[in-house]
Amino acid sequence: MPDRVKIIFSQEMNRAKINIKLILKVMGFLLVFEGLLMLLGLPFALYYHESKWYSLLISGFITSLAGGTLWILNKNDQRKSINRKEGYLIVSIAWVIISLFGTLPFLISGTIPDFTNAFFETMSGFTTTGATVLQDIEVLPRSILFWRSLTHWIGGMGIIVLSVAILPFLGIGGMQLYAAEMPGVKKDKLHPRIMGTAKRLWGIYVLLTFVETGLLMTGDMDLFEGLCHAFGTMATGGFSTRNGSIADFSAYSQYIIVVFMILAGMNFTLHYLALHGRLKEVWRNEEFRKYIYVIFIFSAVIWIVMVINYSGGFEKAFRDSLFQVVSIITTTGYITSDYLQWPAELWFFIFILMFIGGMAGSTGGGIKVLRQLLLIKNVGLELKRAIHPKAIIPVRLNGQAVSQEVIFKVMAFFQLYILILVIGSLVMSLMGLDFDTALGVSIATLGNIGPGLGAVGPVENYAFIPGMGKWFLSFMMLLGRLELFTILILLSPAFWKR
Amino acid sequence: MPDRVKIIFSQEMNRAKINIKLILKVMGFLLVFEGLLMLLGLPFALYYHESKWYSLLISGFITSLAGGTLWILNKNDQRKSINRKEGYLIVSIAWVIISLFGTLPFLISGTIPDFTNAFFETMSGFTTTGATVLQDIEVLPRSILFWRSLTHWIGGMGIIVLSVAILPFLGIGGMQLYAAEMPGVKKDKLHPRIMGTAKRLWGIYVLLTFVETGLLMTGDMDLFEGLCHAFGTMATGGFSTRNGSIADFSAYSQYIIVVFMILAGMNFTLHYLALHGRLKEVWRNEEFRKYIYVIFIFSAVIWIVMVINYSGGFEKAFRDSLFQVVSIITTTGYITSDYLQWPAELWFFIFILMFIGGMAGSTGGGIKVLRQLLLIKNVGLELKRAIHPKAIIPVRLNGQAVSQEVIFKVMAFFQLYILILVIGSLVMSLMGLDFDTALGVSIATLGNIGPGLGAVGPVENYAFIPGMGKWFLSFMMLLGRLELFTILILLSPAFWKR
Repeated sequence: MPDRVKIIFSQEMNRAKINIKLILKVMGFLLVFEGLLMLLGLPFALYYHESKWYSLLISGFITSLAGGTLWILNKNDQRKSINRKEGYLIVSIAWVIISLFGTLPFLISGTIPDFTNAFFETMSGFTTTGATVLQDIEVLPRSILFWRSLTHWIGGMGIIVLSVAILPFLGIGGMQLYAAEMPGVKKDKLHPRIMGTAKRLWGIYVLLTFVETGLLMTGDMDLFEGLCHAFGTMATGGFSTRNGSIADFSAYSQYIIVVFMILAGMNFTLHYLALHGRLKEVWRNEEFRKYIYVIFIFSAVIWIVMVINYSGGFEKAFRDSLFQVVSIITTTGYITSDYLQWPAELWFFIFILMFIGGMAGSTGGGIKVLRQLLLIKNVGLELKRAIHPKAIIPVRLNGQAVSQEVIFKVMAFFQLYILILVIGSLVMSLMGLDFDTALGVSIATLGNIGPGLGAVGPVENYAFIPGMGKWFLSFMMLLGRLELFTILILLSPAFWKR
Repeated sequence: MPDRVKIIFSQEMNRAKINIKLILKVMGFLLVFEGLLMLLGLPFALYYHESKWYSLLISGFITSLAGGTLWILNKNDQRKSINRKEGYLIVSIAWVIISLFGTLPFLISGTIPDFTNAFFETMSGFTTTGATVLQDIEVLPRSILFWRSLTHWIGGMGIIVLSVAILPFLGIGGMQLYAAEMPGVKKDKLHPRIMGTAKRLWGIYVLLTFVETGLLMTGDMDLFEGLCHAFGTMATGGFSTRNGSIADFSAYSQYIIVVFMILAGMNFTLHYLALHGRLKEVWRNEEFRKYIYVIFIFSAVIWIVMVINYSGGFEKAFRDSLFQVVSIITTTGYITSDYLQWPAELWFFIFILMFIGGMAGSTGGGIKVLRQLLLIKNVGLELKRAIHPKAIIPVRLNGQAVSQEVIFKVMAFFQLYILILVIGSLVMSLMGLDFDTALGVSIATLGNIGPGLGAVGPVENYAFIPGMGKWFLSFMMLLGRLELFTILILLSPAFWKR
């Protein structure tokens, strides 16, 4: 977003007029940016002597040209502030338009000739979901696979600025709470330092990506594979360059990816604190501790059950348990072991992890650890409240009382999440999917995870889903990624009333 | 409960001392009552010349004797009021102790010789769940089957008094709202008419049971089968006298049972209004209309899908769709058609019905239509609230604003329900059950439905569940039936603090 445009969210949203020109200008800027990023894969096309090396070049040219045109046509608009309504519109339209142009490399190279499939794949990339329609990934040219992984990484950048600059101010699903915790963010008002904060967090994101790439290259990956998997990890995306996902790589690479998935699923503000040596503050963060505990407990239980049931070896069972737990809770979706082949009693553990998600302020999707933590605390306190009906017993987070209003919003978010999941599963059921698969595709797309249950298990893909279903699931990915409300508000008649 | 004991709920619950003698006295009264009811099956034992005709006689004698002893030993206690803590204890202990003695007919007749199995079956009866451990129902003597069905009916009586007299005052899960709607009930104070109301509702319950029995007897049932199935219907229980459940009976009987299941899943206060000719008020009740709409829409969708997929005939498909939708939403659990044999896309519809349940104030279990209605309304309004952050937009029910506090409690109830469901499924998973079955047994017991998914589908039973699992599921049935909080509060340390 251009630096010169200040974001001022007016509480009086409804009196504000939507400035179409401003929105088109921002879209133009984003498309130019996207077009330029497409060219990043060009060196790989040339280095590997790909026959269709021009795919990315043409795609980048078209995208930048479209963006540049939009920008120039609307540059006369001099307004420098964005109101709430425009905020919702910009975020929602951005993800859709970027995904539309993002299909070009797939279509022009002919690697995904069908538009529905190409859109599903690109939306899956930008929403950092990682669900794929490809049945054989390895036949694709490397430059196209590079773009595919890059969509994750760009999506992750978008999520960082979204969670720092936009969602907290819209007060969606209790995220005002998270805003209060962030350095440089003040309640109800966008602090001037906000874009500075976003840039610092982007710096951390870029740094971690390069460190991971370097570490993966000291193992069994080359630059191409290292970058692609680092993109997929840091964005909690999940696209791989191999049909076998991470199972194709060494134990060393798997452990490296585990560590960076954990980092990607953390609130990026904590990385900022850690880099400034404030490690104590990191550990004092309740959400972070619960995130680590959940990973630890689930991995341990799964490990023990696997060791009892299998003779696959202690270390391999440990690595697979840890890897899949981290991959699912962070909503990355990388695979080292097909959890649907695990003892049946473990499936439910994986299913639960799908409902947790990463920390608030991470690139991870799902409901988020913070919300689940508040919900569980509140339920426990409801028992106390039933015993002492007159007492006021607030939920406490990091030692501070959380207002009932925030808890109310978090609960409503959870209800809405479950409701959408149910509607999604119903719709997919009616398209002929069985119970496990319908539930599996819904939770895997709404939670931006990628692999699900049933026929969309870890070693399967989404190719068999009917075309209508792919459009619907693309919508589910977008809904989940933009925290439900951002999209649903646009569908509400009240939004469009003056 | 004896007439002379007045219930006065003190808000200052914690200062109140628990009067053990009073609790024992009430238990004594209930056991005498249970013992006498056991004898009701005796005529069938004699009429059908059963070899172990004495089973019910001995069981009834032991139960009444135990009850009488408790009563006499504690009758000197002259306190005539019950405080909140005692209210929670009486309700919880009552269901457990009644179930313990209720196993006697099964144990003494040797029809269910194992205590774990007998307890599971009896708890399933009194909680109106209808889950069974019996693999062949028809080999049991009729008098024992009569007692088995009667446990449902007694449980249903308990639920009526519970929902009229106790839960609304404890304010559990938003049920204070329901209290406000009931004739003869005033906020925070037990109106003297309350036991009168309970008795009037019992009168309706008895009346409907006899009308249904009569109608079933004009079809293909005799007095024994008519009574047993009327007990199972009016209590929304689900125990049948046949292995094939209601599929063994004529279309006429099936339609009769559908009608009475719908009546049993209704708020009994509406029957009271209807009997007084106030039909307009019944139809104006929003919860009632939504209950009817859900039945209509789900039946229609399932019917259409079945007609497209099958050649089983229009009327049969219609009847099966309607029957199973009504049976699941009311949490009865009678079966005319194995829904796991239906097209796979319909399973999810059945699954959703399991989360709705009957109306508040009915004998049905589950989350209840009222709560789901408030939750969905609130979620819709959250979108409006996000657009107008300063506006106060309350949920409206029957044209009246519902306080945020009630909505808060309803949401917390829903969270707790889901949390218990998840923990239950995890525990059952660890006992070796697969995903569908673990989820199926948890929802079917917590929702007091009976048949579930996976290996506890409509034509299956709970015999294969390990002993520990049966105890755990008995606990789940009790939790669900007593609206979660009643039981969980007893497990909270704060309850026992002075």
